[in-house]
Formats: sequence, C-alpha cells, structure tokens
Amino acid sequence: MADLAGRLLEGLPEAAVVLDPDVTSAYSHDMAGFCVAGEPAVLVLPETVEQVQHILRTATELRVPVVPQGARTGLSGGANAVDGCILLSMVRMNRILELDPVNRIAVVQPGVVNAELSRAAAEHGLAYPPDPSSWESCTIGGNIGTGAGGLCCVKYGVTSEYVLGLDVVLPDGRLLRTGRRTAKGVAGYDLTRLLVGSEGTLGVVVEAVLALRPAPAPQLALAAEFPSADAACTAVCEVMAAGFVPSLLELMDATTVRAVNEMARMGLPDATKALLLVAFDGPGKAEDLAAVAELCRAAGASEVVPAEDRAESDLLLEARRLALPALDRLGTTMIDDVAVPRSRMAEMLRGVARIADRQRLTIGMVCHAGDGNTHPVVVFDATDEAQSARALESFDEIMALGLELGGTITGEHGVGLLKRDWLARELGPVGLELQRQIKAVFDPLGIMNPGKTI
Amino acid sequence: MADLAGRLLEGLPEAAVVLDPDVTSAYSHDMAGFCVAGEPAVLVLPETVEQVQHILRTATELRVPVVPQGARTGLSGGANAVDGCILLSMVRMNRILELDPVNRIAVVQPGVVNAELSRAAAEHGLAYPPDPSSWESCTIGGNIGTGAGGLCCVKYGVTSEYVLGLDVVLPDGRLLRTGRRTAKGVAGYDLTRLLVGSEGTLGVVVEAVLALRPAPAPQLALAAEFPSADAACTAVCEVMAAGFVPSLLELMDATTVRAVNEMARMGLPDATKALLLVAFDGPGKAEDLAAVAELCRAAGASEVVPAEDRAESDLLLEARRLALPALDRLGTTMIDDVAVPRSRMAEMLRGVARIADRQRLTIGMVCHAGDGNTHPVVVFDATDEAQSARALESFDEIMALGLELGGTITGEHGVGLLKRDWLARELGPVGLELQRQIKAVFDPLGIMNPGKTI
Repeated sequence: MADLAGRLLEGLPEAAVVLDPDVTSAYSHDMAGFCVAGEPAVLVLPETVEQVQHILRTATELRVPVVPQGARTGLSGGANAVDGCILLSMVRMNRILELDPVNRIAVVQPGVVNAELSRAAAEHGLAYPPDPSSWESCTIGGNIGTGAGGLCCVKYGVTSEYVLGLDVVLPDGRLLRTGRRTAKGVAGYDLTRLLVGSEGTLGVVVEAVLALRPAPAPQLALAAEFPSADAACTAVCEVMAAGFVPSLLELMDATTVRAVNEMARMGLPDATKALLLVAFDGPGKAEDLAAVAELCRAAGASEVVPAEDRAESDLLLEARRLALPALDRLGTTMIDDVAVPRSRMAEMLRGVARIADRQRLTIGMVCHAGDGNTHPVVVFDATDEAQSARALESFDEIMALGLELGGTITGEHGVGLLKRDWLARELGPVGLELQRQIKAVFDPLGIMNPGKTI
Repeated sequence: MADLAGRLLEGLPEAAVVLDPDVTSAYSHDMAGFCVAGEPAVLVLPETVEQVQHILRTATELRVPVVPQGARTGLSGGANAVDGCILLSMVRMNRILELDPVNRIAVVQPGVVNAELSRAAAEHGLAYPPDPSSWESCTIGGNIGTGAGGLCCVKYGVTSEYVLGLDVVLPDGRLLRTGRRTAKGVAGYDLTRLLVGSEGTLGVVVEAVLALRPAPAPQLALAAEFPSADAACTAVCEVMAAGFVPSLLELMDATTVRAVNEMARMGLPDATKALLLVAFDGPGKAEDLAAVAELCRAAGASEVVPAEDRAESDLLLEARRLALPALDRLGTTMIDDVAVPRSRMAEMLRGVARIADRQRLTIGMVCHAGDGNTHPVVVFDATDEAQSARALESFDEIMALGLELGGTITGEHGVGLLKRDWLARELGPVGLELQRQIKAVFDPLGIMNPGKTI
C-alpha cells in the first residue's frame, strides 16, 4: 500500500491522494442497499486527464483494481469499493468545456453535475434531457456509466441518445477517443455506445461530447385517480396506442399513493388505487391534455384533475417527487428497476402485489409508465433478519417476473453488484460470452471495477 | 467450389443456391462507384434462421468468406463480392413478424424493404423514421448494416436510434440475441448498437426489434433562394441556434440548382447560388415556417417561397428529390458523405468549391444541412482516364477537408471498401486497434465481409 500511494504521488499532488480510512470508507459505497463494500486502499481525486492516465498506468503496473466513481448516487452498488482498490473519484474534473448553441452540443468533464449542465444549457435556450431523480447531485460521468434515464425519457430518450463522443482512459493508461462532434456519423463500430452503460468496467470517461436539444416549454400536467392499477395501466396503453407523445407519464400504486398522502396530506381519497400523472410540453399541450383526460375517464378514472397552468402542474407533479421519500418513511427501502413492454405493465403490477402478499411485505410501485419501467420499492425492517431475507427474496422474484414478461432486469439503474447474478439469465450464454470477451479486449488484466456487471 | 455448393445444399433447398455466373455477377456489387468487386463462388438466398446458421457453419468449416447483402443500394461497396465468397442475400427473409401499436415496436426480418415497413406502420398511425433516398428498395437489414440516415434525421435521428434488439447469426453459426423489446434497458454492454453500422463484418442480422413513432402530420415547407452558399449556411446556423426543430432542412448549391433547373424547368433564377428547403411537421408548423422565412430573409435570401398547403410543399420538396438524378445527367457521379459540425458547413462548401476549381471538375453539393451532413457529388467522364483520376483525387481531398473541419468521413453511407483507408485516419491508432480486437471477438477467422471497413 505504501508502494501504491508512493507511486500514485509521483504523478498526483498530495491533496489528490487520500489514505485516511474515515474518508475512504465514506467513499466506499453508493446508495444501493444489500450490497457489500470492500475496503479501499486509497482514494484518488484527479483533476486532469494526465493524472487519470498516471493512476491507471500505476494500477496496471501494480495490478491493483480500480473503482471509478461519480457522486455515488447509484442504486446498484456499481461504485462500491472492492478490497484493496483504488477508488477513483472523478468529481473534481467538473468543468463544462464548451456549450455550443449552433451545433447543439456540450463538451464536459465527467464530474459535472447533471443539474449544473442543465442550468448552463438553459441559459442558451437548450436542455440536456436525461433527468434521473438524483439530478441535483449525480454527475454526467455517472450518468454515462449507468446509462441513466429519468422522468422525461418517455419523450426524450435516455443518456445513450445524448452521448456523441467520449475521451476514455483505458486501463493501461492509453487515451481512446470515440465518436464525433457531428450530428451524424457511422465511421467504424459504435464504441461510444458500447461505453455508455458499461459501469466503469472498460475504462474511465474523462471527457464527453453531449447532444443538447432546444429547451422545451413548461409542462402542463393532469392527475388521474383510478379505482384499480389495471385501469390505470389500460389508460397508459390507450394513451400510447393513440399516438400521444407525453413529456411525462408516471404511475403510482395504492401503497405509494397512501404513503404520499400520509406524508403530504394531499387529500387523495382512500378509494384511489392508482394515480396517473400525465404531462405535455408541445405546442398543442392543452388539447393533448384534454384528449388524454377523456381517455382516462373512459378507462375508468374516478377523478381527473387537469392543471390550469404551470404552477398547478408543478403542484400535481410534486406527488411524484414525494413518492420515494414517502416510501422511505415506512422503513428501509430497496428499489428495483425492471422494465417490461408497456402492454404487460398491468401483469407486472399484479404480480408484484402477489409477491408482496406472499412475502408479507409492503412493496410500493413507482413507474415510468410510458416506458414500462417499473420501480418496485420493497419496504422492510432491516433490523429483522427474517424480514430482510424475505425482502431480498422478493427483490429476486420481481426480476424473475420481469424477465418472464419479456422485460429486462434493469431499465436505467444498471447491473452493478446487485444484479450481477441476474445478468447471465437475461443475456443467455452466447451474449454473456461475447460480453466477457469484449471486456477482456479493453481490460485484459481485469482491473476495472472487478466483480461488477459482467 | 463443388464441395462448397454440396455442403450448402445439405441444409438449403436447391432454389436457394445459385451458381450461374450471370446471376452471381449481377449480385456482386452495390451502387458505389470506383469499387472493385470480386468473383463470388456462390450466391445463397436463405429463407429461415436455421438456413443462415447452416450457411455460416459451412463457411466457418471451409474457411470461405461471407458477404451479407440487402438490396445492394449501398454507396460504399460494402456489399461487393470478394473472390471466392459466399454472397449471402437476405432479401427472401422479408416478413414483418409483428407490428405493435401499444409498445410502438415492429419485429421484422432483415429483407423487409424500408418503404414496406413504413407503409405497414402507417396503417397503425405509426412511422419508422429513417428514410434513406433508396427507401423504396433498400432493406432494413441493409439500413442496420450501414446505420442509414435520410432526410428526416434532422428531427428524428438515424437507424441506430430505432434498433432496440437484434437476432444475429455469428460466423460460427451460433445465434446471438441482443437488446430488448422494452422502451428502456441497460443490462450489459450495448451490443445492439455495436452491431448497427458494422457493415456485415461481425455477423448476420436475422431479426430486428425496431422502435416506431407516432406518424407525424404532413410537412409544410418553404424554399429560400440565396445569393451565396455562405448566406444559406448562415441561415441554417441561425435556424438551429434559434431552437427550431425542422423536420427537414436541406441545402443545394448553385451547381445542383442549375442541374435541377435544367432537368425540370423549375424556373429558378440564375442568380440563385444556393437553395434552402425547410419543413416542419409539428402542431405550430405554420408559425415556425413564417419565423424561419423571416430568418432566411434577414440572412440575405433573395426570395422565400412558403407553401400554402401540403400539395405546394410536395412540389417544393420535389426539387430535392430531383437533385441526384439531375446531377447524374451531367456525367458519371460519385457521391461522398462527409458530415461536419453545422457551424463549419460554410467552410466545407467553400473548400469543396476550391477543390472543384483546382481539379477542373463539376462537384454538386446536396446537403442534409440541419445535420451538417454534406453529399458532395463529383461529376466526371468515366471514359476519360485523367478525369477519372482527378475525380478520385477530389473525393479524397473532400474527406481530408471534412476531417480538418472536425467532421467524419461518413455521416450515413458507411465505410465499406470506398473509405477503408480513411477510417484509420479518423479513428486513430488506439481506436483502430480496439475495433480490430472487437472484430476478432465476433469473427476470429476473419470470414465476415473481409476487406471492408476495418
């Protein structure tokens, strides 16, 4: 370890190399539950590409594992330390290098916080759409690592749609430049998108060219209360089949609605078994919203509350923002991230309700319904061993159900540690073998974030 | 060869194995100029996944190269035969397997023609946006192979944005399933997008899950005549910087305008040095078009002709559809495909004009201007050896210019044979080495479309 720190200090200032175990242990995990974190050897906080290259060359030389990190807001343990590793925190490389309204691109370092980029883009009338819940603290590097999504993805797509090119330091310290600064380009294999969502297992992003969009107009929203989750899912399918393009389409089940109600005294009737939030931001948004209100009523909504303006819309959307905090008040929570074809979301909700019943647990459903991306939130008492075991079991049952319904074990959070064993089931043997071989092309020594994902 | 045909016939019906050299030579090249085509050993036209697997297993066993093909409308020689190869034409696997309006996906075989999918989707109020010029004949498999673009990409993006999952037969006959049927998903490395644009060098697509969108409303267009290409490029930059999202934004230079004028007697004044076509299809299209008309006038447009309705719009857009046929009437043509940041498109046009001058050649510019994707069309007399050599030279000079301006050698046509030597210049040594290693993971024997791209 003295060797390692000494070698690192040959190319890094003292302030960038942290050995204090109080600090390193604080950096040793992200926000996922049920994930072990090892003991890191050292935490490094580089500020330049050359420093990152030095760190990775050192790691290769000494065969030390490297765990890259952003703001550690991840939910799958992907940023958790492994024993004896270099924790490579990219948070100090946090500059927006370019913001170009004509070409609608931003060039950023990985430590830039998502919300900071959004605010900087807004000054030019532009937007960087992917908006994970943690957008006020999560970094673009972390977003790229996990392939992050968010609420607006139903209209605007996820992170991989917005990454045009990357500068990546490979495990041996070489600098790889992928992609382009142009709107289009098909020269060679798409390594950019291979790296998006690779969770730090192939290399370390040190710069990214991101596509921006014109900032959308403020959203206009409605809330619709349904007497059953089935009816709400039917409404979702009908909205999408009718060709609407909402900027937000979220669903909360009875458990979540009750929790939000208790926390915020929103006065939702007890008969509400599911709440749908729909928003539009296009030029015809008032007409679209009125038409969707009709569809919701036809699908059985007991009450449809359309907002008259932006302020009322924000109030309605507040219910969604409170969903996770409200569920958190009920106990320890573990959030899953299973996406299914949206036509099968009703089955998913029924199935999760059955699992909750059988396991005698509370499981709240918070769904990016337009994308079929469900977040079952398992609530349990972490001090109760048997209950914790049942929580873990139901977490697995939820993934099995998702796969059975033609879905994926992770819509936007990533595989990390949490779902590593499940990845093989989703990919199958041929896919898994190819993925392992690709990993070996980038990282022949297996030092990049070992034990994660693949 | 007898061996090869015999082995192939063990798993294929007689009608699927063609040895007649008249037929095989007709299949031996795509639509690219200046590209050699080898002599194929055999042409195969499978109808099932199992047959494709048999073909590739046979190829691996006998170490015979395989060249996959769609409709051979490609412009880079990617589908050209290599000596002694199996030409693997996928055109008979041409069924639309599913079309699902709720989940907004289509599941198709690779031989489905782009326009057929578009028409089938339209029956459900849906659209498959990527629309290469050859859309009436090109296949989805070919589109995936090249990462095809088109006119509407400025608003709707290119092929890779619409491919959710693939079934791919690997060179050794194994079946790889990538991606998903869900709107979102980040489980494992994104092999789907690695395969899009891989030009048949990694495997053979036998089925694809494609994302569809709600069909847009008919476009409303305007034509703006400019006294210089510079002024037209300024208008493009201002339209994009102002946050407009046109559904089409095309530019034709003086050479192209003259050729179209001569062919179709459109009555454009000789003073027109560049023609801009702009269209919108959103709810506020009339207002957007009026605002863009103002921007064009402010940028120096001598005449702005807005369409009153769909019929007039179609008439205006006809000029763009005639651009390539009109240039074709002037001699043999060779179409390039260089994309640059849109802020540098004016420099690109000036540079190409200089090249045309110096090489004493006609070069027409047809540009997907909103994307900075230029198609310089080099016109020459193919019977004149010296002129042909100058054409080839200018083709290369155009690519060098594109790279110099921060662009890419191919925005949407692919690398194929035509630009293989240039790919290394764009990727650099680190990227090229990784790409070669990835190729070896999929195709260790190097039998898939050898000599193309990488």
